Amino acid sequence: MTDTDSSLDTRHKARMERKKAVVDAAIAAATDKRGVLLVNTGNGKGKSSAAFGVLARALGHGLQCGVVQFVKGRSDTGEEAFFRQQPGVSWHVMGDGFTWDTQNRAADIASARAGWEQARAFLRDPAIGLVILDELNIVLKYAYLDVAEVIADLQARPAHQHVIVTGRAAPDALVEVADTVTDMGATKHAFKAGIAAQAGVEF
Amino acid sequence: MTDTDSSLDTRHKARMERKKAVVDAAIAAATDKRGVLLVNTGNGKGKSSAAFGVLARALGHGLQCGVVQFVKGRSDTGEEAFFRQQPGVSWHVMGDGFTWDTQNRAADIASARAGWEQARAFLRDPAIGLVILDELNIVLKYAYLDVAEVIADLQARPAHQHVIVTGRAAPDALVEVADTVTDMGATKHAFKAGIAAQAGVEF
Repeated sequence: MTDTDSSLDTRHKARMERKKAVVDAAIAAATDKRGVLLVNTGNGKGKSSAAFGVLARALGHGLQCGVVQFVKGRSDTGEEAFFRQQPGVSWHVMGDGFTWDTQNRAADIASARAGWEQARAFLRDPAIGLVILDELNIVLKYAYLDVAEVIADLQARPAHQHVIVTGRAAPDALVEVADTVTDMGATKHAFKAGIAAQAGVEF
Repeated sequence: MTDTDSSLDTRHKARMERKKAVVDAAIAAATDKRGVLLVNTGNGKGKSSAAFGVLARALGHGLQCGVVQFVKGRSDTGEEAFFRQQPGVSWHVMGDGFTWDTQNRAADIASARAGWEQARAFLRDPAIGLVILDELNIVLKYAYLDVAEVIADLQARPAHQHVIVTGRAAPDALVEVADTVTDMGATKHAFKAGIAAQAGVEF
C-alpha cells in the first residue's frame, strides 16, 4: 500500500465515522412499528416488480400475503406461475385486460368492483400481513372505483398489515394518506428502443 | 343503465379503439429479442425489491438466476431466506456492510473485488438467464471497482442474458450502455416520518 492509499484510507475512515453518526441518529429516531401503505407509481419500469420483490421478502419472514391484480387479465406471467406455488400466497387475477383491449367500460367497472371485494376481504383479515393491489391506480384513474371508499377501507385495515398499491398516475388523495410513495421515472426504456417485452423480464 | 352511462360507454369505446391502434403499432415495432441491461437507481424505495420481483418472474419462466449482493453484509433478509430455498437461484452476499459501518476502505475494496469475481463467473456462464448485481452502483460510486472494466464484462456476456444493476447514483457510463433505466424518486418515505425499517417490507 502506498502513502497515498494510506492517507486516503484515513480520510475515508473519518468521513465514514461522521456519516455513521448521522445514520445512527436517524435510525434511533425512527421507532414507530406498524403496517405501512406503500404506493409505487410513475411511468418507469419497476412498480409491480418492486411489489413482488417485497412479496418475496415478506414470505421470507413468514407473513401470509394476498395479491389482487386489477386490469391485467393474462394468467401466463412468470410472477403468477412462481408465486402460486409458494405456501402463504393467495393470488387473484381480477382484470379483463387493458382498457384499450376490452373497450368495454361497463365490463371494466364490473371487474374492478369484483377485484375490490376480494381486496376488502384481505383488508379485513388480520391473518394477512401484506396485501398487494397491483394496478389499482389505473382503475382509480378511470374512476372505476371510488377513491374515497378505497381509502376508507385501507385505513380500516388491521394495524400491523402492510399494503402496496401499484400503477401509473396514483391519485393525490392516495398519495396523501400513504407512508411511502416512490415515483418510478423512465430515464430510458428498452421497449422504446425497439426491444420486445420478453418473458422473465417484462412479464 | 342511464342514457348518460350509455353515451359515456360509447365515447369510452371510441377512445379506447384509438388508443389500441397506437399501442398495437408500438408493440409491432418492438421486435428485437435479446438480453437486456436494466439499471434501478434513485433515492426512493424499490431499487432492490424491483430486481427481486423480476427474479421471481424469471424463475416462473424457468430461468437459472445468479445474485451478487455488494455492500450489504447482513444475511437475515427476507429475500435471502426466501430465494435460497428456491431451485434455480445461486445467491451470494459479498459485502461487509455499509461503508459507514465498516469504516475500512481497504476491506471494502477487497470485498467489492471478490464480489466482482463472482459476478464475472455468472456473466461468463450461458446457463444463467438473469444476473442481479445488487448495490453495484454504490461500489462504483466509491470507485471500489473500475467502471470501464465492469462495463466491458457486462458487454461480453452471453447475448440472451439479462442483467439488473441496483443502487443509488448509477454512473453515467453505465446509464449510457443500459437498455432500461428507472430512476426511483422518493416522493415520500416512511422512515423520514419516524417509522422504523420493518421485517418483510424493508429487509
